[in-house]
Amino acid sequence: MDLLERLGLPRRALLLHHDDLGLTHAQNGAYEALGFPTGSVMVPGAWASGVRGEDLGVHLVLTSEWPAPRMRPLTPGESLRDEAGYFPASLEVFWRKARLEEVERELRAQIEAAKRLFSPTHLDTHQGAVLRPDLAEVYLRLAQEYRLVPLIPDSLEGLGVPPAFLPGLETLMARVPFPRVRFLDPYGLPPEERLGFYLDLANLPPGLYYLVHHSALPTPEGRALPDWRTREADYFALSHPEVRRVLAEFYPLTWRTVRDALWGGS
Amino acid sequence: MDLLERLGLPRRALLLHHDDLGLTHAQNGAYEALGFPTGSVMVPGAWASGVRGEDLGVHLVLTSEWPAPRMRPLTPGESLRDEAGYFPASLEVFWRKARLEEVERELRAQIEAAKRLFSPTHLDTHQGAVLRPDLAEVYLRLAQEYRLVPLIPDSLEGLGVPPAFLPGLETLMARVPFPRVRFLDPYGLPPEERLGFYLDLANLPPGLYYLVHHSALPTPEGRALPDWRTREADYFALSHPEVRRVLAEFYPLTWRTVRDALWGGS
Repeated sequence: MDLLERLGLPRRALLLHHDDLGLTHAQNGAYEALGFPTGSVMVPGAWASGVRGEDLGVHLVLTSEWPAPRMRPLTPGESLRDEAGYFPASLEVFWRKARLEEVERELRAQIEAAKRLFSPTHLDTHQGAVLRPDLAEVYLRLAQEYRLVPLIPDSLEGLGVPPAFLPGLETLMARVPFPRVRFLDPYGLPPEERLGFYLDLANLPPGLYYLVHHSALPTPEGRALPDWRTREADYFALSHPEVRRVLAEFYPLTWRTVRDALWGGS
Repeated sequence: MDLLERLGLPRRALLLHHDDLGLTHAQNGAYEALGFPTGSVMVPGAWASGVRGEDLGVHLVLTSEWPAPRMRPLTPGESLRDEAGYFPASLEVFWRKARLEEVERELRAQIEAAKRLFSPTHLDTHQGAVLRPDLAEVYLRLAQEYRLVPLIPDSLEGLGVPPAFLPGLETLMARVPFPRVRFLDPYGLPPEERLGFYLDLANLPPGLYYLVHHSALPTPEGRALPDWRTREADYFALSHPEVRRVLAEFYPLTWRTVRDALWGGS
């Protein structure tokens, strides 16, 4: 029996997920303005303590890719930082350098710190940094240990996963007791196609969908991020009344509901 | 012979200092827009890596006083952090808890990290956190060791220094080989008196003045700080042509000039 049947839910359900909260004021402001409950917080981000919401997760951070703002690890592991003490700017450098035990210590610290700020419901990871199979094992084990639902896509195709990681990941994913979701992410689409992408959701067949957006307010701080155009495009589209009408045709699932189904309320 | 004589400078010189760079995009943006060279960077701040300038110092951080954005220590000392892992929100808590050796390790880490980002010329401290006399001794020793000019006011009166710290500080200050400056800080004045404060600088007698401002751009992110009004008041006043005219009557001293006079160029 799949998750939607277990929950007694309609055949089209949507987890509408706001990525990268806690990084900038503009992302947090968009989360407040849009009013959707689900998103995840970058705990090493300067604005992590400013997020308040009903269905927040931990957006595990192991890379810091822009010139500014930048983020530093919470724990002292040397393999987690560049020469200036920040997380590495690239996934490739991170995957080459990161020592397993230092990553586990850092991820635990981020989850523990998150629990001081809000009541987390789920786990996911910035830039897919935990896709190295030994790190993915830690990610899934910590999810189980902390009773936080981990994001697991139903397929690894089209996500840019390095081919060398695929066999190990497939083995791990085949045996975990967590739901898998159909992953939708308009991040790479040109901004002018964004409204069309959201309106086309009306045509989706039944399924459990997970839609990642990166909405940010159109402010000078938000526009200091090199990829601000795609963030504003999400924000404008998700503010549009026609998109709201399309979204209202889905069951609005939250990770909190999934978590309660897996482990009971807490 | 005082510093101005040694430097062969006019009898009215001004170090116009921009505090709290690196904390928000709005502070950094004001620094770029105003074009004055001197300021200091909060290295644990998210935007520290985004500051570029000719006369930047290290604004040593040991407290994090707002609900958001918040800052974490770079080093693991337990006495430097609250339960969520941030620097303490109040000076009183910090002064009560902070262990000397953990503070020294953190201050060294901030200076070393700053040197990876820019070429620092001077040291000062957020909220006066190093005024506890044993910490002030570390501050002055690190300044000497790293050849960074430390901010030292010519008088401790009116700065809100706890009376218990005064005897120890006076003893330290009497023997250090650094210049002392006349400290001016309009932060606590009502914003509507700010323009008048800056215009009145025209009436100052001869001296070596150090004027702290906290200019920030008028943006949503800048206005998320509880004290945004005083920051914008500095920004608007320092953008005003009449204030610019008054400032042009002072010799525009930099910490880099002072540093070169103390230790030679580097």
